[in-house]
Amino acid sequence: MPNRDRGGSRLETGPLYSLNVRDHFMIAHSFRGEIFGPAQRLHGATYVVDATFRREELDADGLVVDIGLASTTLKAVLGELDFRNLDEEIAFMGQNTTTEFLARAIFDRLVVAIRGGRLGDGARGLQRVSVTLHESHVAWASFEGPV
Amino acid sequence: MPNRDRGGSRLETGPLYSLNVRDHFMIAHSFRGEIFGPAQRLHGATYVVDATFRREELDADGLVVDIGLASTTLKAVLGELDFRNLDEEIAFMGQNTTTEFLARAIFDRLVVAIRGGRLGDGARGLQRVSVTLHESHVAWASFEGPV
Amino acid sequence: MPNRDRGGSRLETGPLYSLNVRDHFMIAHSFRGEIFGPAQRLHGATYVVDATFRREELDADGLVVDIGLASTTLKAVLGELDFRNLDEEIAFMGQNTTTEFLARAIFDRLVVAIRGGRLGDGARGLQRVSVTLHESHVAWASFEGPV
Amino acid sequence: MPNRDRGGSRLETGPLYSLNVRDHFMIAHSFRGEIFGPAQRLHGATYVVDATFRREELDADGLVVDIGLASTTLKAVLGELDFRNLDEEIAFMGQNTTTEFLARAIFDRLVVAIRGGRLGDGARGLQRVSVTLHESHVAWASFEGPV
Amino acid sequence: MPNRDRGGSRLETGPLYSLNVRDHFMIAHSFRGEIFGPAQRLHGATYVVDATFRREELDADGLVVDIGLASTTLKAVLGELDFRNLDEEIAFMGQNTTTEFLARAIFDRLVVAIRGGRLGDGARGLQRVSVTLHESHVAWASFEGPV
Amino acid sequence: MPNRDRGGSRLETGPLYSLNVRDHFMIAHSFRGEIFGPAQRLHGATYVVDATFRREELDADGLVVDIGLASTTLKAVLGELDFRNLDEEIAFMGQNTTTEFLARAIFDRLVVAIRGGRLGDGARGLQRVSVTLHESHVAWASFEGPV
Repeated sequence: MPNRDRGGSRLETGPLYSLNVRDHFMIAHSFRGEIFGPAQRLHGATYVVDATFRREELDADGLVVDIGLASTTLKAVLGELDFRNLDEEIAFMGQNTTTEFLARAIFDRLVVAIRGGRLGDGARGLQRVSVTLHESHVAWASFEGPV
Repeated sequence: MPNRDRGGSRLETGPLYSLNVRDHFMIAHSFRGEIFGPAQRLHGATYVVDATFRREELDADGLVVDIGLASTTLKAVLGELDFRNLDEEIAFMGQNTTTEFLARAIFDRLVVAIRGGRLGDGARGLQRVSVTLHESHVAWASFEGPV
Repeated sequence: MPNRDRGGSRLETGPLYSLNVRDHFMIAHSFRGEIFGPAQRLHGATYVVDATFRREELDADGLVVDIGLASTTLKAVLGELDFRNLDEEIAFMGQNTTTEFLARAIFDRLVVAIRGGRLGDGARGLQRVSVTLHESHVAWASFEGPV
Repeated sequence: MPNRDRGGSRLETGPLYSLNVRDHFMIAHSFRGEIFGPAQRLHGATYVVDATFRREELDADGLVVDIGLASTTLKAVLGELDFRNLDEEIAFMGQNTTTEFLARAIFDRLVVAIRGGRLGDGARGLQRVSVTLHESHVAWASFEGPV
Repeated sequence: MPNRDRGGSRLETGPLYSLNVRDHFMIAHSFRGEIFGPAQRLHGATYVVDATFRREELDADGLVVDIGLASTTLKAVLGELDFRNLDEEIAFMGQNTTTEFLARAIFDRLVVAIRGGRLGDGARGLQRVSVTLHESHVAWASFEGPV
Repeated sequence: MPNRDRGGSRLETGPLYSLNVRDHFMIAHSFRGEIFGPAQRLHGATYVVDATFRREELDADGLVVDIGLASTTLKAVLGELDFRNLDEEIAFMGQNTTTEFLARAIFDRLVVAIRGGRLGDGARGLQRVSVTLHESHVAWASFEGPV
């Protein structure tokens, strides 16, 4: 076990189930800061979103999460952003809505939904969620964290 | 040959070579007209673009078109649109910049580039061009026509 | 124009706009005939479906077809097959529901929908429809025909 | 190191090599339980399967695992399920063969193959395996665990 | 029918069934001619190959072509090129083995196989074949012609 | 928390942001050792490369890493390998340049670039990098490690 002395290795970890649902949303936005170059201009993006739910053991129905509820909840969360100019959204005031920032924002909303029971009782056993936003065929960003 | 009497069947046509290069651009825009529903709001899109060049016979170098020139020309054409709000582009004033409309607009610019020799002398033998814009993992539109 | 004498070449054809929407359905079925080998057993498939609508000129709204109506109509057509055992569907009695056969069956239902106005008045100008069923990462079949 | 006090962070872990091979299988099945809605009916699925093998250090040949043996072993494991009605498989009696359940079942069989030497001697150094089943263009499930 | 006077329009053509199988091969080669720039050096490529078979009417089994025979024949044709340096293949002496050239070469070999009955008797009704070689995530070339 | 006694579980880890950019390179090479079978012959590959950058907290600009610098650095690193015969590269003498080996080699070069400031000052906060090489539609390998 070569890495033992470095602390908890990923290779020592136990089993992990994951389930992923995909959807998308389309927004306009602009960035502030010279580092963003031409992206300082008002432009937009399609984000194809993968929401991945993770847990060590399946629920009583043999599921990570009810895929129907996962899909409708993801659609509802993305629906709050879809077809909008994020520069005018109060929730994002003063923020550069970068892909990684948006991945986190969607993660936060999914965690609220899980805790609020919107993904069903079985989903209360979810331990981690990962949200990936594909912004083109060559770039994506994600945020993963504990529920 | 069941369809003979309907006129020239696609199945009677001769050989056809195609070469495709892919790139992308990211824009903001809005649509006018009730049919567009929430897309009447300012939003945006990533378009992953496939430019396909077609001809019956290869050029003297055994090519449909120089892939390097095809890629740089496509990037230049998309660069005129990238990171922009299409609602403010003079070229598109009074137009709904739907995906199918943009596919045609990019086709037109590629044809001008071909005729102007920007894809090399061999490219003057190109006979058709197809431009496909992928707007998400579930939708795309294209325009194909003669050079 | 080397192929002129072979009849109408695809390269002589005019412009063509296309718009594609994607959805999926999941079914059980079996095939009869030795040529099908192990597929004679009851098994199943996920079909990821691309419905492509084609026309020479855009409608009054600058569209091939209303993408919202196209998506909901495709979902409705696939919903009649989704989560079913096709061996027990009266519509397919005595038929091997091969991928190519199903592509045609879905095409036929989309054409009925178009003619019946379910895709909107603008869609009456559609000239061709193509239906592609992806049955795995290595195989697909399609049917394309006039509306 | 902000998360140190939470225990072994993934960010403290050492290096990890992975190798993935892809194949697919096509089955019929049905689910029991109201939560499954229309999926309680007999239906089916194509599962495109990614089997990912992981280890901290390469074997003597500079490999994670012999890709040829990995591919043929995956095909053999999937061949035991392919073109079958899982409702009639003794191995799965009384089980809902959900995507996450099947990912685990295939994982278990791959681990048996590794331990039995079917992936070669070098493969005895494999430390983790992940199995992902893509059931459509918008959904997948996986199971990952130690060998 | 706006394009009627331009000759046989693609939109006047009849129905068309297609079936596609995918496989891949990996080769080394180099190109001669300044237009090829750094590709004049010995390098290589993975080509992911789509072989598409087309016909107006299905055969007696309700098929475009036996998918098993299509897959094994494609694998056999690619096997003659796989893991080779094309600069040393007698069949390609004096040729730049560009992607479009290779698409045609594979097409020719598939047509020989069809005519020789290697895809079964039903395959004698095939009317067109298309071969597409994906050389990366951003480029592909194809050749399509009559059988 | 079932796995607690096994050491640091992945499920106990904190948040993690990732950003990925994709590019490709095309090389020739051969392998030594009977285990490689026909791959002992000179052949080649296209590698589509995903470089994934990871950190627990975003930098002052709300970024994992400047995507422009990440893309140009990846292109520069791959440019040192692109259109080459790896059997003749001094850096790889005496090595089988397997996909997993190359993933590590590119990882090492990206880490040097990060430490040397080529991805910007913000990138000094990067904690892990993963490099995945897709060698076909059915196989990939990756290496992930700490910066």
